[in-house]
Amino acid sequence: MNSYCLATYRCYDEKADFHKKALGIAVGLTVGSWTELPEAQKAQMEKHLGKVISVEVHEPASSDSALERYADIQIAYPDVNYSRDIPALLVTVFGKLSMDGKIKLIDLSFSSDFLSGFPGPKFGMKGVRDLLGVHDRPLLMSIFKSVVGYELPALREQFYLQAAGGVDLIKDDEILFENPLTPLEKRIEVCMEAAAQASKETGQKLLYAVNLTGPTFQLAEQAKKAIRAGANALLFNVLAYGFDVLHALSSDPEITIPIMAHPAMAGAVYPSPHYGMSASVLLGKLMRLAGADIVLFPSPYGSVVMPREENLAIKHALLTEDLRKDYLYGESSIEPRLAASFPVPSAGIHPGLVPLILRDFGGDVIVNAGGGIHGHPMGTIAGGQAFRQAIDATLKDQSLRDYASTHPELQKAIDTWGIKE
Amino acid sequence: MNSYCLATYRCYDEKADFHKKALGIAVGLTVGSWTELPEAQKAQMEKHLGKVISVEVHEPASSDSALERYADIQIAYPDVNYSRDIPALLVTVFGKLSMDGKIKLIDLSFSSDFLSGFPGPKFGMKGVRDLLGVHDRPLLMSIFKSVVGYELPALREQFYLQAAGGVDLIKDDEILFENPLTPLEKRIEVCMEAAAQASKETGQKLLYAVNLTGPTFQLAEQAKKAIRAGANALLFNVLAYGFDVLHALSSDPEITIPIMAHPAMAGAVYPSPHYGMSASVLLGKLMRLAGADIVLFPSPYGSVVMPREENLAIKHALLTEDLRKDYLYGESSIEPRLAASFPVPSAGIHPGLVPLILRDFGGDVIVNAGGGIHGHPMGTIAGGQAFRQAIDATLKDQSLRDYASTHPELQKAIDTWGIKE
Repeated sequence: MNSYCLATYRCYDEKADFHKKALGIAVGLTVGSWTELPEAQKAQMEKHLGKVISVEVHEPASSDSALERYADIQIAYPDVNYSRDIPALLVTVFGKLSMDGKIKLIDLSFSSDFLSGFPGPKFGMKGVRDLLGVHDRPLLMSIFKSVVGYELPALREQFYLQAAGGVDLIKDDEILFENPLTPLEKRIEVCMEAAAQASKETGQKLLYAVNLTGPTFQLAEQAKKAIRAGANALLFNVLAYGFDVLHALSSDPEITIPIMAHPAMAGAVYPSPHYGMSASVLLGKLMRLAGADIVLFPSPYGSVVMPREENLAIKHALLTEDLRKDYLYGESSIEPRLAASFPVPSAGIHPGLVPLILRDFGGDVIVNAGGGIHGHPMGTIAGGQAFRQAIDATLKDQSLRDYASTHPELQKAIDTWGIKE
Repeated sequence: MNSYCLATYRCYDEKADFHKKALGIAVGLTVGSWTELPEAQKAQMEKHLGKVISVEVHEPASSDSALERYADIQIAYPDVNYSRDIPALLVTVFGKLSMDGKIKLIDLSFSSDFLSGFPGPKFGMKGVRDLLGVHDRPLLMSIFKSVVGYELPALREQFYLQAAGGVDLIKDDEILFENPLTPLEKRIEVCMEAAAQASKETGQKLLYAVNLTGPTFQLAEQAKKAIRAGANALLFNVLAYGFDVLHALSSDPEITIPIMAHPAMAGAVYPSPHYGMSASVLLGKLMRLAGADIVLFPSPYGSVVMPREENLAIKHALLTEDLRKDYLYGESSIEPRLAASFPVPSAGIHPGLVPLILRDFGGDVIVNAGGGIHGHPMGTIAGGQAFRQAIDATLKDQSLRDYASTHPELQKAIDTWGIKE
């Protein structure tokens, strides 16, 4: 029996016949030609033919010339046409078509059959919580302030100060590559040492996501080298390497630590209304499908802004959405539900935003800050503590202002950055 | 002595201080912070600091509110900050920054030092010509009409008809993946057999670019399997896998056949004026840097349209541009000039466009057609012949109309599709 993956496009055109366009996509990106085929051949080719599922045309009210005419077109692509890998699916549904005028891939769903090739996140949200032993609150992550050009002692000091403030995760800067000042193995050694020192004081565990970089074909070996050196998490610039590489790394049984996906370069693809892919596909569904345990994406709060509804769509794709949508089927006997990826809305976060983040994301979120920790007037340790206090206050349903009256670090953070509700 | 790669951005903003923004990029994407550093540390960090090279602000005439305010900002990034691979460079210059508002990467140049890690195209335009023994005319390529769902005999027949018409190259459809009907090795076997048969009749050599697909970490082995099976060229969906994978394949000494880069998915990145990367960076400079021998891109002539000046910028980047621009240097002692990649403007091409293509691209171009060959009223063989006749006529400086009076295949093509001058 045939199975299909589903792609939804938003196409803009002032006067196109969108139904004809949809048919052109369904035929052109599968069997190539249809109406002129002999009947006998049609029977044989039917299972390779794409199907138009829906065409929703949005005509602008004639009074408002600023609105554009567009249609949302959903096409079902037969799984029999492509292999069970992300490049094959993406080239099929948005290879040539990506260059065909104003068109954006706004949704993508996978059949049970296609999904069966993807184990998904090895740890996922629950696995990351298990590693840290924290199940009752949002996690806190911090980012190094400056790393390029710094030597090991300076890096170790920065690491310790972050860890001592009570953060759960620390990530490398995504622009820190293999370099003579802080080479991978040495960096892991001194940072894990600093983590152990802080742990004695805080009683907490900590994950350090070290940046996995270098030539593609050496990444798996590089990851294993990091693990041998003591790394307990990896940071990975997925879009610079491709989703299939993340899939290969996440499903490698010898890579036994969580992978954190960085969204570097994503802004080349998601923000245009007319081109590219929606953020929920790019940073949501595909990241989870490819097995990211933790996914960073631009928050709706800070300097690098993404609209709130797009953010919540990413969250939904990472946490709760069933990526499987079987066309022509009822319930499948297979249950290929993937583990949830931990969402990390990032950029511009300070303690005064914590109640808002928790309202938008619930408890299953990693609060992530850089400047909001290092820039604390009382120092980096106080910066981490202020965030932990903001999280505690919010979970206890207390206002930040009240809680701050007995927590000077939070008070100072509020004095500096304010509260946004 | 320091060396730098140069990135140029076009930033749109109604009221930003673009000089301040430029400085923010130069510092933020390198050392992280600068003005607050102690003087002693500044001396040490100077070599890691990005430099603002130029800021050209374009203020719209106040009378025309449809024009947007923008600036072209060029930044020099110190090579010491990143490793010698494309992911590291792209994550540095357009990782986080890609998500920072309306900003497009419109140019990228490489230092001699960075370039020294890239051998470039192994064959390049000249090598491809040498393999075919054709140096005195543009080449002709054709694309299968329909392939998905077809069996080996039908594929062989299509291949033979294309080859017998006198084409120099035939490429797989980019959406033909490993599949039970026409598996890689069998496909190569029957197509190379058909090529040999046609060669006896035409006296020509032919390159068949078979689609290299599947899991990233198996691509090198898959390429070698194809070579063992007799393949003499590879097609590769570069953007679905990443530029670094192309680089690894092209610099693998055991991959001894040319690689043809397909632009599938490029439309997610280049067309927006506000986001992504320019086509000349994406499909020009980076493809050549990564070692593509032949590069397909949307033509300015047909159904999938790209503006002519963008096309010519791609051509320039592939063929003649010196990708090296050394900032702070005079002439370098190193001469890392890369071989030229063969340009293939594609989509919507018919014989009546040949004079225009040759005027735009000169003789160093591959004329590439699908429908313009298979759709010829006298059949696929005549379709190829008509193109060869159009090329001959143009090289002899004869008008297509005159030449067609003694060449019925060309005449029929002109009757069908017209001439565009």
